[in-house]
Amino acid sequence: MKAQEIAVKQVEIRDSFWSQFQKKIIDVVIPFQEKVLNDEVEGVAKSHAIENFRIAAGLSEGEFYGMVFQDSDVAKWLEGVAYSLAVKPNVELEARADEIIDIIAKAQQADGYLDTYFIIKEPERRWQNLQECHELYCAGHMMEAAVAYYQTTGKDKLLHVVERLADHIISRFGEGKERGIPGHQEVEIGLMKLYRATGNKSYKEMARFFLDERGKNSDYFYQEKVKRGWQHWGQYNLDPLDNTYNQAHQTIYEQKKAVGHAVRAAYMYTAMADLAGEDNDKKLYDACLTLWNNITRQQMYITGGIGSTVEGEAFSIDYDLPNDMAYSETCASIAMVFFAKRMLEMEPDGKFADIMERELYNSTISGIQMDGKKYFYVNPLEVNPKISGKIFGYRHVLPNRPGWYECACCPTNLVRLITSLGSYTWSESDTTIYSHLFIGQKASMRKADVIVESKYPWEGKVSYQISPKTEEEFTMAIHIPYYINIEDNNTYVMLNGEKIELAAQITKGYFYLTRHWKEGDKIELGFDMPVRKVFASQRVRADVGCVALMRGPVVYCFEGVDNGEEIQALRIPKELKAEAYVCEEGVLKGTVCLKINGYRMQSSEELYSEKRPEKLDAELVAIPYYAWANRGENQMRVWLPEE
Amino acid sequence: MKAQEIAVKQVEIRDSFWSQFQKKIIDVVIPFQEKVLNDEVEGVAKSHAIENFRIAAGLSEGEFYGMVFQDSDVAKWLEGVAYSLAVKPNVELEARADEIIDIIAKAQQADGYLDTYFIIKEPERRWQNLQECHELYCAGHMMEAAVAYYQTTGKDKLLHVVERLADHIISRFGEGKERGIPGHQEVEIGLMKLYRATGNKSYKEMARFFLDERGKNSDYFYQEKVKRGWQHWGQYNLDPLDNTYNQAHQTIYEQKKAVGHAVRAAYMYTAMADLAGEDNDKKLYDACLTLWNNITRQQMYITGGIGSTVEGEAFSIDYDLPNDMAYSETCASIAMVFFAKRMLEMEPDGKFADIMERELYNSTISGIQMDGKKYFYVNPLEVNPKISGKIFGYRHVLPNRPGWYECACCPTNLVRLITSLGSYTWSESDTTIYSHLFIGQKASMRKADVIVESKYPWEGKVSYQISPKTEEEFTMAIHIPYYINIEDNNTYVMLNGEKIELAAQITKGYFYLTRHWKEGDKIELGFDMPVRKVFASQRVRADVGCVALMRGPVVYCFEGVDNGEEIQALRIPKELKAEAYVCEEGVLKGTVCLKINGYRMQSSEELYSEKRPEKLDAELVAIPYYAWANRGENQMRVWLPEE
Repeated sequence: MKAQEIAVKQVEIRDSFWSQFQKKIIDVVIPFQEKVLNDEVEGVAKSHAIENFRIAAGLSEGEFYGMVFQDSDVAKWLEGVAYSLAVKPNVELEARADEIIDIIAKAQQADGYLDTYFIIKEPERRWQNLQECHELYCAGHMMEAAVAYYQTTGKDKLLHVVERLADHIISRFGEGKERGIPGHQEVEIGLMKLYRATGNKSYKEMARFFLDERGKNSDYFYQEKVKRGWQHWGQYNLDPLDNTYNQAHQTIYEQKKAVGHAVRAAYMYTAMADLAGEDNDKKLYDACLTLWNNITRQQMYITGGIGSTVEGEAFSIDYDLPNDMAYSETCASIAMVFFAKRMLEMEPDGKFADIMERELYNSTISGIQMDGKKYFYVNPLEVNPKISGKIFGYRHVLPNRPGWYECACCPTNLVRLITSLGSYTWSESDTTIYSHLFIGQKASMRKADVIVESKYPWEGKVSYQISPKTEEEFTMAIHIPYYINIEDNNTYVMLNGEKIELAAQITKGYFYLTRHWKEGDKIELGFDMPVRKVFASQRVRADVGCVALMRGPVVYCFEGVDNGEEIQALRIPKELKAEAYVCEEGVLKGTVCLKINGYRMQSSEELYSEKRPEKLDAELVAIPYYAWANRGENQMRVWLPEE
Repeated sequence: MKAQEIAVKQVEIRDSFWSQFQKKIIDVVIPFQEKVLNDEVEGVAKSHAIENFRIAAGLSEGEFYGMVFQDSDVAKWLEGVAYSLAVKPNVELEARADEIIDIIAKAQQADGYLDTYFIIKEPERRWQNLQECHELYCAGHMMEAAVAYYQTTGKDKLLHVVERLADHIISRFGEGKERGIPGHQEVEIGLMKLYRATGNKSYKEMARFFLDERGKNSDYFYQEKVKRGWQHWGQYNLDPLDNTYNQAHQTIYEQKKAVGHAVRAAYMYTAMADLAGEDNDKKLYDACLTLWNNITRQQMYITGGIGSTVEGEAFSIDYDLPNDMAYSETCASIAMVFFAKRMLEMEPDGKFADIMERELYNSTISGIQMDGKKYFYVNPLEVNPKISGKIFGYRHVLPNRPGWYECACCPTNLVRLITSLGSYTWSESDTTIYSHLFIGQKASMRKADVIVESKYPWEGKVSYQISPKTEEEFTMAIHIPYYINIEDNNTYVMLNGEKIELAAQITKGYFYLTRHWKEGDKIELGFDMPVRKVFASQRVRADVGCVALMRGPVVYCFEGVDNGEEIQALRIPKELKAEAYVCEEGVLKGTVCLKINGYRMQSSEELYSEKRPEKLDAELVAIPYYAWANRGENQMRVWLPEE
């Protein structure tokens, strides 16, 4: 039985860690991105995304500019705006969003079609190049935006736009019609959300068609190309025979390994999990679980990053996780949060919540500068400024966050993730309220209001104060992260000040407590947060002989600014003594950093020598991985050799 | 005062190690390559190189086929044939070589021009594209072939061809003429050899012009392109503004770092050193030494490989020496032998001979399969069959030697190196005979005949039996490799059975002994050959925490076939116990391999774990690096983590 998702507006984040992120996103990033989308920011890649809609609507003269999927930047921004209005109402912003929605509505064609590239440039070529041209992808994002805007503001103008768009898509694709599949999966997610917002089952059925059809005809894109006789000669020119790139090589049930473009893959898995939950489809759930296990057990960086190779922004083979050549796209980590959440709604297993937490505290937010104005698309685990961004193999790995991208998927994706964070914290079934993440907040659910206080991720102290709305018995289920030592004397759960025996109450990473809840009932959790040494499997070539440090869910890294040059010469001792401390100043103020009793091996002047390098004691400093590259260009490593 | 080079025919190799290589080259490789050049081998890349000459000579009909520098394959093969005839006379082969020379002579144009690509395809475009079109490169190789053939056989037909060719080049380029420079350096080496063979100083002066002119106008190739208005649209399309690629960015005196295409660079350095020696030019020698030091102290693999990045087959930056992405072209290592030899002729410093030895026993001969029929262009220090040759970044790194290449520079380069090996062993000045390498042989020099007996590189036992040809005092100078511990009790030098105090007699890596030599005088050397652990500088990111093993001049590696899967899980112990043994069977028969007391770390099923991986004792087997990939496709590593 699928647990229900929690809407963004049911939650008010009041968290020492995340509130500042939300504030930055709302106060800095959304207005900044609005300016970018309106081409009002100097020195960043031109967007033209809103102007494209104006031109398509007949409100402006000019040519289409940008990627063929430029529309999605507007959609993702609008989705973020919608969530932000739930977090912090803003009449002016909402008015401007309404204006943009008016333009979008005007741009929509009489038959429901909506894609500014084709409306402006090549109206006769609509729907002929699903492989490259992203019409369904942009539609999916617009559906997500419309549902979010409707849920927050109650306004249904954009919802009706995407309903007409979805109806147009249904008129065109499916059984007995064109057996098309999206070149970049995403519309399946949008259709599932639209189905839940409207109750119209045809949207869910359309999503199921796109998922079930995938890989049935593994030559679809090649046949499509032969039929249309033209290629989209953009920056985005794909091989129609490469059907692993977009996971069209096998049916979704036959796929046992995550392959191809990581964002396409994880969006598809998200939709699969969503549909499996809605239809209580065990076979589809098993397909999801197989892919989930392959990603998280064979193809994921310690930071949660996925898609290790730049070529195709793709999964490589099992255990091929190079640190200095990593791709690990921000969007792919965000998509893993989406996937994890859908899996959790089907099965409250801590392994899903653990990964969601790993993504949230590491490889998603590493994508954004502390000031909110710069973004990483690629999230390496090792950077060497003389090489990264400059030399073959490392050219995609930048040592500093750029201001914007021509392909601007990641910045807007971060906005919609962080503004909607509240909805990832919970799910609620008929019997149980599930807490997946320790995030301070006031949440309003069907069975209870809950106030969470948390010093996470820096301290192991969390409390839940419950105000039940029902007199019936129900269950509170709280995710206990995998790394908490429940045998430890300092680990406790208290109900109204009295300790509860923890181990017996835990099933698959969730602590369960069932009772008739009374107003003011309080669950308190406490646990130590030691610094942990993590070893990678010996199958991961890049990490052999090395260790990484974690504390709570946070992965740490070493930067040159703290540790001097040639940080590969540093060593973590076998007997680790680590001191966690709160950084008092600079951009890292308030962050928990680490001091380590390490070593520095002396570099000999000789390139090769039979003399063992001298080992000197050195105090090392590690900072949270997500905060790297905020203090100028310098070297960075997550994994260091152990001595 | 420059020492003189020794001609190939002055030396008869009788060496337990190298004789088999020469035999394989002469009996297998030269005939095989002759067939390839004549397009008589199925299943390898088509050559057409001799047919191109036939067509250019008007002896055959057809089109030019191959790389724009296809002629050089014939020249390098002919050069190898010339040396092979000195090693092992072969009347039939010599007759066939004479026939090919006849064809080449017929192909030469009335004005001395000789390049089949332009003669056949674009006669009106001669000499307009020095950057890409390799006319001077092919000319240089033909000069080297002609000199070799003349020196061995006494036949001067090809010598006269290249004299006319050189005269044609001189008529066209130089002070007051076209101030051209070669796009791929090589003609400078050929001109220097032609100068020595003929005594014609204008050839040396032409070489000096090409060297001194280089980098004076760093825009030369761009201006050349603008002037001619066309580009060579082959597989070989170069950026005329990238003047570091072919070392035209600065004058040769200003260049302090080795940059760009490694073979171009090392050929240029070779010519620089050759000219510096001939002209006793201290400034030019210093320029050579600066570049030598940069390569060998900052940019060289432990195997002697240079040019670490595939992009441009080029030097990267200092200390950027990735093992699994290495380029390390066979030709570049061969060129380092050329460079080292010229440096040695100017200054008998062991550091040059040590590198020559490192190249010869490692990254040159790794380029050839044990059966002589397959070749590596790229010589990685780590190979992982699931990734190497397949995934972005590693696609150039092949786990098996292919049979031939479209760009077939390396196989023919190996032929000419190994057949001429004798000439690298010695140089001779007015006062001194220098022995640079421990290679068993009978050598005939001006001052003496010397019989060398050696069990090198497997055993530390070498003797020199001297038959003087003069009654005057002269000096024998014998290179003592850097790794020999002269303090060790087992290390000795004996003259006629009596020990000589070693340390005092050694200057810059050479042991000097001056006397009136008598017939039968015998110098004997003995030294232990322990297995040595080598550490890379901490500046080399790829090697931190790792060690490599050497014994004598031979670098060892670990292969999957001996050590099982996932060899990155192996560890070398701090306290190494290594047993050297002679392999008794298979393709490695007669090779000294190593047994090591190592460990294998157990791979956990978890991708990341806080559990320290279990360490199990494991006997590891290492084989000489040059012999890798002779027993099927498998994993290979030179560097392993130390535990």
